[in-house]
Amino acid sequence: MSNDSGIRVLVEPLREFCVQVLARLYVPLEDAETTADNLLEADLRGVSSHGVARFRRYVRGLQTGQMIPQPDIRLIHETPATALVDGGGGLGQPVSKRAMRMAIEKARQVGAGFVTVRNSNHFGIAGYYAMLALPHEMIGICTTNSAVLVVPTFGRDAMLGTNPISVAAPAGRERPFVLDMATSTVPRGKLEVYNRMNKPMPLGWATDEVGEASTDAGHVLGNMERLAGGGLLPLGGAGELLSGHKGYGLALLVDILSGVLPGAGYADNIYLKDEAGKPLPTNVGHFFGALRVDGFRPVAEFKATMDDIIRRLKDSAKAVGQERIYIHGEKEYELTDERRANGVLLHPKVMADLQAMVGEFGVPFAH
Amino acid sequence: MSNDSGIRVLVEPLREFCVQVLARLYVPLEDAETTADNLLEADLRGVSSHGVARFRRYVRGLQTGQMIPQPDIRLIHETPATALVDGGGGLGQPVSKRAMRMAIEKARQVGAGFVTVRNSNHFGIAGYYAMLALPHEMIGICTTNSAVLVVPTFGRDAMLGTNPISVAAPAGRERPFVLDMATSTVPRGKLEVYNRMNKPMPLGWATDEVGEASTDAGHVLGNMERLAGGGLLPLGGAGELLSGHKGYGLALLVDILSGVLPGAGYADNIYLKDEAGKPLPTNVGHFFGALRVDGFRPVAEFKATMDDIIRRLKDSAKAVGQERIYIHGEKEYELTDERRANGVLLHPKVMADLQAMVGEFGVPFAH
Repeated sequence: MSNDSGIRVLVEPLREFCVQVLARLYVPLEDAETTADNLLEADLRGVSSHGVARFRRYVRGLQTGQMIPQPDIRLIHETPATALVDGGGGLGQPVSKRAMRMAIEKARQVGAGFVTVRNSNHFGIAGYYAMLALPHEMIGICTTNSAVLVVPTFGRDAMLGTNPISVAAPAGRERPFVLDMATSTVPRGKLEVYNRMNKPMPLGWATDEVGEASTDAGHVLGNMERLAGGGLLPLGGAGELLSGHKGYGLALLVDILSGVLPGAGYADNIYLKDEAGKPLPTNVGHFFGALRVDGFRPVAEFKATMDDIIRRLKDSAKAVGQERIYIHGEKEYELTDERRANGVLLHPKVMADLQAMVGEFGVPFAH
Repeated sequence: MSNDSGIRVLVEPLREFCVQVLARLYVPLEDAETTADNLLEADLRGVSSHGVARFRRYVRGLQTGQMIPQPDIRLIHETPATALVDGGGGLGQPVSKRAMRMAIEKARQVGAGFVTVRNSNHFGIAGYYAMLALPHEMIGICTTNSAVLVVPTFGRDAMLGTNPISVAAPAGRERPFVLDMATSTVPRGKLEVYNRMNKPMPLGWATDEVGEASTDAGHVLGNMERLAGGGLLPLGGAGELLSGHKGYGLALLVDILSGVLPGAGYADNIYLKDEAGKPLPTNVGHFFGALRVDGFRPVAEFKATMDDIIRRLKDSAKAVGQERIYIHGEKEYELTDERRANGVLLHPKVMADLQAMVGEFGVPFAH
């Protein structure tokens, strides 16, 4: 979800501020940098919901002990092409970057590498990890499960997360293909936008407390807050008419790869609380993969064909009223170029929250 | 798309008939059996569009030389975890089964195996290949590209196939998870059903010749026949409101994995004809993968968790008016049980066509 307005802040000082706050919370420098890079990447790409807007939650997680600043990350099992890593309950970003690098190294050795992670936390945007494969002339793959928000087809209650899928593939002269999509029709943030505008949602985004498609964003958000039933709909919407069962299938697939395969949390068995209501370790799980392009075909040939398929799609005839056909990742690359030069856009509330941390942690914010 | 009516035919005589007809067309026995098995599996699972209803097209392809009965299947390149296979322009099923078996063998050796195929043809249902991994305690993956029918987001012309994704994962007491989905909202067959019923289609299935969402199935089918513009919509429908760009992204992803990666046809550069209008080799491409479950986690633990996630979903509260939440593959397993006992259901036209082949090929059909 891209922001159209907000306060401009340059990337470097914002990154440095996040790194220093994490360091005050005993996160090792390299891990703090990885975490900050991932958050900034989200803001650069226009996915502000996963950018520094989420930083407070990470800070709180570290303060309450829900996230461990210096976790015991362990390699539990491996084969030449696969591995299972335990994240030790730390921040999601550092263990995820390590796991993706391991997948890349395995792919370098044997052609393909797949690494799953259990006992982790929110890892930011999935595309960040899939894209790590690109400089290695590999196809990068990443999925994660997440907090329960999505209602299965014919169900009433949220049972799955928005469980994103990201795949990145290199191109030649053209920009890489970078798919990074939640398997729900829309993220919760879209409901919040419609609620603020007091505008009816399109049918197909969310259901009410009895499992019927709803246009009332405020009502659905209230239900979600109180766990009163209903939630987001999978890609394809309610029922089977527009194939909501396919989005549900993709969300479940992601939970199998990211949650069941590593032995992490899954379905509604994730982000649990103890009897006193205190959050337990989230036990989020992830799935990372890398495929060497030249394990199949020479890289130069592959890239030339990528350029051709991209041009064919972009140059094909447009629907009436449309001027442009996009390739996945293209809008985000353009936003990144612009924002790297001019700064990312932060919501005033997010900015105020960062300012509050200046005093809280004694870290300057020279923006 | 499941058939609710038709002529009952028992599996064994129908399979034998198909095998014998293919043998008359110089297809080796084992390849003929694989092809017939795949077609029958589609009819058993209720995907009649990919069942023996398609047999005539295979027969014609073999007769015209578009499909080679005894192709020169070659291993072009391999690493421990990857391979590229050239299908030699033969039937899609035999080379696909061989490629999937190769992926499984690679996974047995190093934990993961991925094999792409170029210069192939229509391979039937994707789920057939993904499911081959199940008895090996592996997760099976399969995608293929296909004839151009789907319009990209903001586009006017069909540029991609319905490009299915299938992933199968074993369970314990419960039935396996078998996702097998086209990345379009619906297949062309659904438009044909609505056209026969003279019923308006839901918005989100297809677009007209200027790229606007249409409810007129006959009109859209006519356009598709004449290549006059428009076609099927990706999962999520037209534009971005219900996230049609995600379905478009999945269709493009499948084309990258199945078409670009092996160097097969892709986008509208597939199913080409020569200047006289004669079909050239289709150059369809496929992507097969296998992941050893115990490359990550002990099989017994994985299966117990699969059973638990399946039960949690199935036992969760139902939407008003609904009595059952399904897991992907569940309906198809139930249909298979019933049809294996009582026979598959063939449309009278398909039955008549099979009867015509009795005389054509001198093969008895003892149904």
